[in-house]
Amino acid sequence: MQRYFIKNEQHKNDQIIIDGLDYHHITHVMRMKVSDKMMVIDEDGNSYETSINSIDKHYVILNVLKTFKTNPELPINVTMAFGLTKYPKMEEVIRRITELGAFEFVGVEMERSNVRLDRLPLLKTERWELIVKEASEQSGRTKLMKITPFLSFSSLLQKFSSFDLCLFADEEKGKQNDLSLKTILNEFKGQSILVLIGPEGGISDKERTQLGNNHFQAVGLGPRILRCETAPLYVMSAISFSKEFGNEN
Amino acid sequence: MQRYFIKNEQHKNDQIIIDGLDYHHITHVMRMKVSDKMMVIDEDGNSYETSINSIDKHYVILNVLKTFKTNPELPINVTMAFGLTKYPKMEEVIRRITELGAFEFVGVEMERSNVRLDRLPLLKTERWELIVKEASEQSGRTKLMKITPFLSFSSLLQKFSSFDLCLFADEEKGKQNDLSLKTILNEFKGQSILVLIGPEGGISDKERTQLGNNHFQAVGLGPRILRCETAPLYVMSAISFSKEFGNEN
Repeated sequence: MQRYFIKNEQHKNDQIIIDGLDYHHITHVMRMKVSDKMMVIDEDGNSYETSINSIDKHYVILNVLKTFKTNPELPINVTMAFGLTKYPKMEEVIRRITELGAFEFVGVEMERSNVRLDRLPLLKTERWELIVKEASEQSGRTKLMKITPFLSFSSLLQKFSSFDLCLFADEEKGKQNDLSLKTILNEFKGQSILVLIGPEGGISDKERTQLGNNHFQAVGLGPRILRCETAPLYVMSAISFSKEFGNEN
Repeated sequence: MQRYFIKNEQHKNDQIIIDGLDYHHITHVMRMKVSDKMMVIDEDGNSYETSINSIDKHYVILNVLKTFKTNPELPINVTMAFGLTKYPKMEEVIRRITELGAFEFVGVEMERSNVRLDRLPLLKTERWELIVKEASEQSGRTKLMKITPFLSFSSLLQKFSSFDLCLFADEEKGKQNDLSLKTILNEFKGQSILVLIGPEGGISDKERTQLGNNHFQAVGLGPRILRCETAPLYVMSAISFSKEFGNEN
């Protein structure tokens, strides 16, 4: 069933009012008619099975048929910090980690970033938020991933105290057959993880030292060298596999 | 260090001869000079640390400095069968599962494929093999992933006996909170796994039944609905995480 996100204020009594882009999508793209059904999710993560009551020139009015709580959300808040890189790669990462259940995306200026905070191309926050919205609807999520488009490396380092665990992916660790990721994840009992993935050129020695000094633990992601845009997907999948499939094994 | 794949015949005594595209890459793209070093991997997965002995108009001649066996390969041969879909998506999957250590990619014609075997766009096998080669070099792999571009669904069904385990990703199982993937992978002691991921529209009910009748087990990939091009990455990451990070936990 098609899914749409709404603001809580669109839900009044037992009806939901849709306008704007979603109105267009329902009427023109999906060509839905009166009594067609769809799922609607509000800001609190409540899901509603609804059917179309009426369609006029500006609004689709939905009747709520059933209300329920689903839980398609990861049991841990994962903040994915990603070394700033060209926008298309960042957008791909934003889309995929949304699908895979991330809580927040943070772009971080790093030594080997080929995009700089002081010479950033036009901000695309709106576009990125739309990517998140679409990917959330498609994947059936009930929460929208937060986007913090840009942060300096030193600001990231100061964030460690806000998280129960801070990790960074380290190629060298991977080559050395470092298996700590599994142990760390399986033993983790906290609520929030920050994971940093370096940009295309990797994390510099200086940054590696600073991360170590600020309670970030280096982890390997297996013996192969992953592209910067593949590594976040590996981490998200590993966290899901470790935490959503039971801890017993 | 830059990596190149060679045919065994390019390796004669203690020298390696490079021509063609790799010659171009070494001399024009990387602009390497005499005595610059690179890694070379032959068809048997042997790795060589080499340095450039000489460069002429057509050949780069390398001296072998050190020979060693690395093992960046997954301990299990994973064949990823993927419902035929538009080529750009297939190419993305080919690139990423190469990085993640897959043994073979198989394109499968399925009911909801928007590409048909009898009306296929021009074959791009050569291009796909180049993608595999580049992704293998970048990720440090010693084996090239095989590509079987197109197979009918009924031929796929007949393949089950060639594998120790056949799985298919099932959205419905994911929504029902099916956790079997972890148990199956952790208990698996065989050598080869076939995993089928449906096309964009998913696997049809009829196909689901046929798969079940042919020893394919349905598994969920967590509670979120993954795009067809994200699901293979989840599976490859889960297999790596389950099998390359020790089995104890």
